[in-house]
Amino acid sequence: MAEVNEMRELGRRARRAARQLLQTSGDQRREALLGMAAALERHLDTILQENQRDLDSADDRGITGAMRDRLRLTSDRVGGMAQGLREVAEMDDPLGQVVAEWTRPNGLEISQVRIPLGVIGIIYEARPNVTADAAGLCLKSGNVVFLRGGSEAQHSNSVILKVLREAIEQQGLPADALMSLPSTDRGWIMEMLKADEFIDVIIPRGGESLIRFVVENSRVPVIKHYKGVCHIYIDGEADLSKALDICINAKVQRPGVCNAMETLLVDAEVANTFLPDVARRYADAGVELRGCSDTRGIIDVLEATDLDYHAEYLDLVLSIKVVHGVDGAIAHIEEFGSDHTESIISENSVTVQRFLDQIQSSVVMANASTRFSDGGQMGLGAEIGISTSKLHAYGPMGVTDLTTRKFVIRGNGQIRN
Amino acid sequence: MAEVNEMRELGRRARRAARQLLQTSGDQRREALLGMAAALERHLDTILQENQRDLDSADDRGITGAMRDRLRLTSDRVGGMAQGLREVAEMDDPLGQVVAEWTRPNGLEISQVRIPLGVIGIIYEARPNVTADAAGLCLKSGNVVFLRGGSEAQHSNSVILKVLREAIEQQGLPADALMSLPSTDRGWIMEMLKADEFIDVIIPRGGESLIRFVVENSRVPVIKHYKGVCHIYIDGEADLSKALDICINAKVQRPGVCNAMETLLVDAEVANTFLPDVARRYADAGVELRGCSDTRGIIDVLEATDLDYHAEYLDLVLSIKVVHGVDGAIAHIEEFGSDHTESIISENSVTVQRFLDQIQSSVVMANASTRFSDGGQMGLGAEIGISTSKLHAYGPMGVTDLTTRKFVIRGNGQIRN
Repeated sequence: MAEVNEMRELGRRARRAARQLLQTSGDQRREALLGMAAALERHLDTILQENQRDLDSADDRGITGAMRDRLRLTSDRVGGMAQGLREVAEMDDPLGQVVAEWTRPNGLEISQVRIPLGVIGIIYEARPNVTADAAGLCLKSGNVVFLRGGSEAQHSNSVILKVLREAIEQQGLPADALMSLPSTDRGWIMEMLKADEFIDVIIPRGGESLIRFVVENSRVPVIKHYKGVCHIYIDGEADLSKALDICINAKVQRPGVCNAMETLLVDAEVANTFLPDVARRYADAGVELRGCSDTRGIIDVLEATDLDYHAEYLDLVLSIKVVHGVDGAIAHIEEFGSDHTESIISENSVTVQRFLDQIQSSVVMANASTRFSDGGQMGLGAEIGISTSKLHAYGPMGVTDLTTRKFVIRGNGQIRN
Repeated sequence: MAEVNEMRELGRRARRAARQLLQTSGDQRREALLGMAAALERHLDTILQENQRDLDSADDRGITGAMRDRLRLTSDRVGGMAQGLREVAEMDDPLGQVVAEWTRPNGLEISQVRIPLGVIGIIYEARPNVTADAAGLCLKSGNVVFLRGGSEAQHSNSVILKVLREAIEQQGLPADALMSLPSTDRGWIMEMLKADEFIDVIIPRGGESLIRFVVENSRVPVIKHYKGVCHIYIDGEADLSKALDICINAKVQRPGVCNAMETLLVDAEVANTFLPDVARRYADAGVELRGCSDTRGIIDVLEATDLDYHAEYLDLVLSIKVVHGVDGAIAHIEEFGSDHTESIISENSVTVQRFLDQIQSSVVMANASTRFSDGGQMGLGAEIGISTSKLHAYGPMGVTDLTTRKFVIRGNGQIRN
C-alpha cells in the first residue's frame, strides 16, 4: 500500500511537471538539452566513480562479457552521451506543428496540432547511456520521462539522473521532467505498469522476457519490439556480387543487434551458384551456418530446425533456407518473421515490387543491408526504440513518434442541428 | 483448453483472410461494400425477424427504455446501415498512400506507405448497427474485423454478419474478412484479449465498465475512450448571446452521447449576468442544474459535489462552477476532464489561444458547440470510435486511423560501414 501511495505522489509530480513543460518554448528546451550535455562532461569524474561501483558489483556477481561491456562507461562513452544530447538539441521542435488543416462548410476551421504524449515510462536494462538518451528525446518533445533502469546500473543511472536534473533546473525547467522510481525492485515496475492515470505510454527496452513481462502486466499502453528475426531473400534475378556483399554486411558487421540478418533465403534458381560462394565468405568471417535439406545438398552445414528459423541469434550464426521464388520467400517470412526488417536482392523490378507490397514488416527493403533499419541511418535522428506492433508507430521511432495530435476547432458561434 | 485451440484456429483464419485482403484493389473493396449494402436491403425481412427474437428476449428480461431502443431495428435503420456502407465505399482508399519520401546521402530512397493494421477486434454492446458500420470501415481499410457483440443482440448480429459474409464472398473476397466469436460468453472475450498473436488492436465500444474490463485484461493494444466529461467555459469576454445558444445546444440537442456538455464553467466576471439567463433557458428545456456555492449564490440550484464534476450524466443534468478567468477553467478541466472535448466561448483572441494551447484534450474548441466533436461533423467520414488516450489516434477516428505506415527502402547495393 505504501508503494501505491508513493507511486501516486510520484505520478502527481510527473503530471505537474508535464503541465509546466507545456509552458516552455522550443528554445528553452534546446538550451536545457545543451545544459544537460555540458553537465555530463563537467561531472565526468563522479559519473565514472559511480559507474565503477556498479562494475565492482558486477564483478562480485560474476557478470562478464557483453553484459559487463554494456554496463561500462568511459570518458569516450560519456562524451558520446553528451554529443547525442547536443544533436537532439539541434533537431527541429516537433511541438505545435500543424499536421493538417481544413474548413467545414459551416465555417468551422479545423486543424491537427502536434502535442507531447505527456509522461513516458522507459524500462530498460544494463546500459546507463539510455538514461541520457531517453531523457534527451523525451525532453525535446515536451514529455516528462519516468525512468526505470536495471539494478546492475543503479549507481550510474542515479548519478546521471541527478546531474541532468540539476542541469535542467538551472535552465528554469522543472527537475521533475526527469524522474525515476525510488528503487529497482520488481514490485515498483508493477506499480508503474498500473499507473495509467499518470503515465501515457511505456517503452520497454531490453530482452524478450522483460518485454513480455511488461506487455502481460501493463494497463498503460506499451510500444515495443520483441525481437528482430531479419531476413534477406536472394532472388533468381539478383546481382550476385551485390548479394554477397550485402549478406556479409548484414550478418557480420555487428551481429549482436536487432537489425542484423538471422535467416538467409535463397531462390532455388541460384542456390547452386550462390551458396558455395557465400559459404566461403562466411567461413572466413567465422559464421556458423545451419541449413535446410536443400541447402545441405549443396554445402556442408548443420541442420536447421524450425527453432532456428524462429531464432534471433544475435551472434555469428545464420540459418539458411532454399525457397521457390519470391512467393516462397514471402511465405517463409509470414510464418517465421518478427515484423522487423526484410530485404530482397533482385534486379527484377516486378519481383521487387511484389516483395515490398506483400511483406508487412515495419521496414521492407530492396538491394540494401538490413543494418540500415535504424533511426539514425534512415534520417529520423536519434532513435527512442523500434516498434514491431502496428499501433502508433511501426519501425524505428524518432522524436516525432513521442508526440500525438489534438484537434483544434475554431468557430464563431456554430451549433449543431 | 478447447477455447484456446478454437481461438487459435479462428486467429489463423483471420490472418489468412488478412493476407488475401492485401491482394485486393481499392476498387474491389469498393464493390464489396456496395454489395454489402445491397444485401442488407435484400434481406431486410429476415433481419427484422431475427431482430424480433432479440426484442422478445429483451422483453422477457424486462429490458426497456433506451437500451431496448438501441437494440431495435426498423426498415429505416437497416436502410441507414446500407447508406452508411455506400458512403464508406465512396471514400478515398487510404491504402498505398505515400505519407512521406526522402533520399539519404548514400542514395537509399525511403518512403512511408499506408498499410492496414491487419486484424481489428471490435467489442460492443447492444447496437446491432455497429456490426455493419465496423465491418464496412475495417473492410474499406483492408483490415479483417473480429466482431464480438452483446448477447442481447445475438440473433440480429448473427444474421447481419451472415448476410455480409455472403455478399463479400460473391464479390470474390474471403468471407473470413468478417469474423465473429462462436459465442457471446465472457470466457470468449478473455480468449480474444489474449490473442495478441492474431489480433493487432481491440476497439471496445460501450459503457465505462466494459471498457475498463477490456483494458485490465487485454494483452492486445486497446484504443478506447472511457467517457466524455465535456466542458464549456464562458469567458468574461464572451459574446453572451452566442454563449447561450451554444450552452443549450451542447446540453440539450442530444444529451445521451459522449460529446454532450456535462459541466459548464462560468467566469466570475459574467456569472451574475449569464447564470440567471442560462438557467431560465435550461428550465424551459427541462435540464436539472447542480452548482458550486458561488453558483448557488446567484441562482437557486442543487449543490454539486466532486462526484458531479466527475460525472458523465448522459442525461438532462448539468453541473455548473464559477471559476476565476481562463486559468481557473484550465485548472478545473485538468482535474476533472476526461480528455474528450472542451470549448471556450470568448471574443478575446489571446484568451482563446491560451485555452487552446493549454488544454490537452483530444478536441479543443473555441466558440462552437461540443456536439461537433464527431468524425462525420469534422469531415473525417464515418467514425469507428473516439480515442481519449494519446497513442496512435487522439479524438474521433476515421478510416485512416485503421491503418499504419511501413517504411519502404530502395537501394542499389548499399552496405553499412
